[in-house]
Amino acid sequence: MVRVAIIGASGYTGAEAIKIILGHSEAELTYLTALPEECGPVETVFPQFKGRCGMEIEPLDMEEIGGVADVVLCCLPHKVSMGFVPKLLGAGLKVIDFSADYRLRDPQVYETFYQEHTDKANLANAVYGLPELFRDEIAGADLIANPGCFPTGAVLAIAPLLKEGLIEPDSIIVNALTGSSGAGKNPSVKFHFPNMNENVFPYGIGVHRHMPEIEQVASDVAGCNVKVLFQPHAGPFDRGILSTVYCRPSREIGNEKLLKLYDDFYRREQFVRVRTDAPGVKDVVGTNYCHVFAAAVKGRIVAFSAIDNINKGASGQAIQNMNILFGLDETEGLK
Amino acid sequence: MVRVAIIGASGYTGAEAIKIILGHSEAELTYLTALPEECGPVETVFPQFKGRCGMEIEPLDMEEIGGVADVVLCCLPHKVSMGFVPKLLGAGLKVIDFSADYRLRDPQVYETFYQEHTDKANLANAVYGLPELFRDEIAGADLIANPGCFPTGAVLAIAPLLKEGLIEPDSIIVNALTGSSGAGKNPSVKFHFPNMNENVFPYGIGVHRHMPEIEQVASDVAGCNVKVLFQPHAGPFDRGILSTVYCRPSREIGNEKLLKLYDDFYRREQFVRVRTDAPGVKDVVGTNYCHVFAAAVKGRIVAFSAIDNINKGASGQAIQNMNILFGLDETEGLK
Amino acid sequence: MVRVAIIGASGYTGAEAIKIILGHSEAELTYLTALPEECGPVETVFPQFKGRCGMEIEPLDMEEIGGVADVVLCCLPHKVSMGFVPKLLGAGLKVIDFSADYRLRDPQVYETFYQEHTDKANLANAVYGLPELFRDEIAGADLIANPGCFPTGAVLAIAPLLKEGLIEPDSIIVNALTGSSGAGKNPSVKFHFPNMNENVFPYGIGVHRHMPEIEQVASDVAGCNVKVLFQPHAGPFDRGILSTVYCRPSREIGNEKLLKLYDDFYRREQFVRVRTDAPGVKDVVGTNYCHVFAAAVKGRIVAFSAIDNINKGASGQAIQNMNILFGLDETEGLK
Amino acid sequence: MVRVAIIGASGYTGAEAIKIILGHSEAELTYLTALPEECGPVETVFPQFKGRCGMEIEPLDMEEIGGVADVVLCCLPHKVSMGFVPKLLGAGLKVIDFSADYRLRDPQVYETFYQEHTDKANLANAVYGLPELFRDEIAGADLIANPGCFPTGAVLAIAPLLKEGLIEPDSIIVNALTGSSGAGKNPSVKFHFPNMNENVFPYGIGVHRHMPEIEQVASDVAGCNVKVLFQPHAGPFDRGILSTVYCRPSREIGNEKLLKLYDDFYRREQFVRVRTDAPGVKDVVGTNYCHVFAAAVKGRIVAFSAIDNINKGASGQAIQNMNILFGLDETEGLK
Repeated sequence: MVRVAIIGASGYTGAEAIKIILGHSEAELTYLTALPEECGPVETVFPQFKGRCGMEIEPLDMEEIGGVADVVLCCLPHKVSMGFVPKLLGAGLKVIDFSADYRLRDPQVYETFYQEHTDKANLANAVYGLPELFRDEIAGADLIANPGCFPTGAVLAIAPLLKEGLIEPDSIIVNALTGSSGAGKNPSVKFHFPNMNENVFPYGIGVHRHMPEIEQVASDVAGCNVKVLFQPHAGPFDRGILSTVYCRPSREIGNEKLLKLYDDFYRREQFVRVRTDAPGVKDVVGTNYCHVFAAAVKGRIVAFSAIDNINKGASGQAIQNMNILFGLDETEGLK
Repeated sequence: MVRVAIIGASGYTGAEAIKIILGHSEAELTYLTALPEECGPVETVFPQFKGRCGMEIEPLDMEEIGGVADVVLCCLPHKVSMGFVPKLLGAGLKVIDFSADYRLRDPQVYETFYQEHTDKANLANAVYGLPELFRDEIAGADLIANPGCFPTGAVLAIAPLLKEGLIEPDSIIVNALTGSSGAGKNPSVKFHFPNMNENVFPYGIGVHRHMPEIEQVASDVAGCNVKVLFQPHAGPFDRGILSTVYCRPSREIGNEKLLKLYDDFYRREQFVRVRTDAPGVKDVVGTNYCHVFAAAVKGRIVAFSAIDNINKGASGQAIQNMNILFGLDETEGLK
Repeated sequence: MVRVAIIGASGYTGAEAIKIILGHSEAELTYLTALPEECGPVETVFPQFKGRCGMEIEPLDMEEIGGVADVVLCCLPHKVSMGFVPKLLGAGLKVIDFSADYRLRDPQVYETFYQEHTDKANLANAVYGLPELFRDEIAGADLIANPGCFPTGAVLAIAPLLKEGLIEPDSIIVNALTGSSGAGKNPSVKFHFPNMNENVFPYGIGVHRHMPEIEQVASDVAGCNVKVLFQPHAGPFDRGILSTVYCRPSREIGNEKLLKLYDDFYRREQFVRVRTDAPGVKDVVGTNYCHVFAAAVKGRIVAFSAIDNINKGASGQAIQNMNILFGLDETEGLK
Repeated sequence: MVRVAIIGASGYTGAEAIKIILGHSEAELTYLTALPEECGPVETVFPQFKGRCGMEIEPLDMEEIGGVADVVLCCLPHKVSMGFVPKLLGAGLKVIDFSADYRLRDPQVYETFYQEHTDKANLANAVYGLPELFRDEIAGADLIANPGCFPTGAVLAIAPLLKEGLIEPDSIIVNALTGSSGAGKNPSVKFHFPNMNENVFPYGIGVHRHMPEIEQVASDVAGCNVKVLFQPHAGPFDRGILSTVYCRPSREIGNEKLLKLYDDFYRREQFVRVRTDAPGVKDVVGTNYCHVFAAAVKGRIVAFSAIDNINKGASGQAIQNMNILFGLDETEGLK
């Protein structure tokens, strides 16, 4: 049994990770931590676990964690995470980090969108944990940067096109709509029910931190420098991201060839399903699946993907990475 | 033109009152106040008023208000309101108070559910502003206690029965479900979108402050001491209260007679509509209407009412009271 | 492996049953049927199963089913079910029936609320499948009448009180609020999104078919004739039933004793959790759990329960029954 | 008083038009018609009008309508409308048509997306009723083609840029998200509450009928041939369209200049508000307002608009057109 610790277990991604591991036949939760004011029995912190999990969420004890876990799901916020990861790695643990701290290869880009990077040593060795694209590197990693929810949806929507060199590299526009859980657990004016309900609004115009991340990964897949305009929106539903990606093809391609290209690219993938019609987020909510569909429209390609932002966009993908890391069936706990 | 000031204009009831008065042909807004940190152009505080209202919400200046207004809609919270009302009355203003501070005739009951009452003098002269039941008293009042949202829905649902002495006085159970706007404008864990969405929960079990208010008004209408068990719930919608009231009839009554009783009782009312089927909250949202329906079921009577909690349950009813107070058509601004 | 057939697999309860059994380690789906016009690959009928289930939903072939299954989950509608059940039993299959056809012991009651009963022979041998109350009978049954969603929630909320003889038998009022999935898969005016969204309404006033079912089960538990007034409402959320049950205690009981009574009663249950505060439906949605809470209020008891109407209220409970029937761990596939 | 008839009054746009005209001080409803099976008292067809409108919706009598109305709001579906409009015009009535039948100047384009056009004579004289762009033509028209909801939002979002020649004409992508009321009143699988709730999905990929309409109007404003890729999505809310429009500027422009351009362009408009931040649909729902905002992002311009699809996107805009047509204050009934 793989022994799993979750640091920052009191948020939405923590809850989802707990839920998945409770149903995982080859991994077990051994240690759950959070800030002192958010500790307590799992049953109390998350009433939905009443009777399903008898564990306690405790303040982190760095002495203890090395002895009780093989891998840490580090669900800390950006900027906080890199304060803990070096110690966790130092304790001999594998780390799957949910924050953005190890996703952007170039510290300067990180520092433009976040702050000074204080752990460049480990950054250099981190592997970007999108299994459909970087499975081999993941298998041998000590530190996995679990992808952002928007980059996961955006890149999976167009990876076959990028790989094939089919996209004009400066033509990509990612229009995404996320459910409200993406905003996290802390109450705020924007996500107060009477504000968010019956509403939809754009945010992060021109400055969202997932923009450089999408560009980096898309460029990696394309093998050339790709520019992306990314515009997120929030809508009145709990979970799910629908990504609508517009791009110009570098050569003409019809719908049949598009479908074949996607089918071939994702043929061996367990969690990406190529649709022949447009997906809705409800088709994937609660699962680690990503549904994709692409069509040629008026000289452009419009590609769609739907994922659950907390599952495939965070905790499900982390477990998928963990399964790869420990040589388990990649789908264990996720089907 | 009746000159209207709103104190505490930055909340949901303030916004609704502004909206109604903007469409009122015989009243005009002259003064809007709020706590300093919530002041600013109405357009900024409430984006939905962009281009519709050029006024500013300002900190309250008690010197100024007497000269610019005839009536004050006092949208302050419970306990705060009674600190301001005496001065407003002293400045010669009519006051329609949205808080609970002047609703409970017996200060001891108030003090059980709230705190020490510091303005018993005015309490003694306040009139409970439910026009369908106390229209004559409202017309001559200086201080109107605008009813709570739950009491409005609950009492209108069964007033014909109470008046007729048709209810066993200890048999009344009010089961109410409110939209989330009832919780007010401040973000909170319970009403954070990812918590409230796809959820419904009871609250205030046995201790909700509207329980004694319902009892007082129901007793007034019945002419005897009436006991009420009141249980509120919150649901995933913005606005509206559905009240389902269960009671035992003191003598047998069939559905036809029930309908006739309700029809007769509300015949002259402009804002209460007797239905021949069950109302939904969507039938009344955005209006000052209350839809009611009653049926005899297995030896009991089940009565339903639907109101908009912010409109008929607060600001619409306040304007209705204002219209009565100033001898205007009761429906002005509300149809 | 228990071989499971689902008849009527194309509806919401069918989909939930498929999902649960896919994760069940000792049962496997062997046969899925539906009306011809609703047949096709599971992946097509339910896009959420893309890549998760390669089976086909086929028209029912009564010759075939006997050879490929040990148990049938019969998800047919009321009145239709009893046309198939005798043949299924005749083919040597265990049957767990989701309809109301075998729930009401007295055919006359059935005929008042539904139509003529055409399979009284099997009705006499059917066991009501609420495991928390009738586990022993379930274990030896051939035909299990899977309980209605409302009766499940209502009875579990007050079973400890009923068993203890603590309720005045004519004092019970069940006020329930269900999510929209309770209305089934077929589009209708009432459940058209623009009608149901931001709405809540009562229905089935005085005539809902779950009323006699609740009365029968409550009477069985109480050991005396119990009368119940049941009033359902529909609200703008997918899943979940919140039941608020009002009753008069036959003798005084305080909150501490109530809690102890509930704790003792449900101590050994895996799927009922006694809360110390009020549950919300979101605490149980997606699970087979029932959360209950009771409080003494003004001379009455108010008891609450929350369940997922499609899971504990239908398919989850059916699998729980199946597990009992085949001597498996009762929680298999459900945790 | 302008006498208004509504044909096809039983749908969502009919209800909204009724509501607006009930509050209009210089227009009155004189005749409401619908298909025979949808006729009846307004109070019955739309419970929200109980006590607010005593009229009857009747089957259309073409003899009668000429004598009782000055203007007809023709809320019939596409293809049906052009069967009635010639007769209405022949009866001397002004017609504001809600369908697409008179919006596309080129019958061939119409016939590609709809069917054969059977009233080309009137098509040639119809005026496209977007007051902010074509006010003068509207004032003298007999037949106004009331714009589609998506074209209204899309074109208002970028009209200042188009007018100024600031957009590369083949670079426009309109990504729109509409509330469910856009699908109309008839129940359907896609908009069944349990399907649409917690969901968001794209539709009409590459083939939506509003695409040529947006192109035509955008080309008119730009004075050159403009190509538009239009992709609509549906989301889990009642009302509102958020349009996110991406385009390439033909010359560089910064955010300050963009704001000034928009401010200047819309300075005299009563119903378009230029925002300095991104609008949400909740800021405009229930009103005839359109909120717009534009920003320069990574070499592109991203422009946003929010409207209420049934109000500014249909019935509100129709009344705005009617006000212009009859020389009334353009905002009458709409503020």
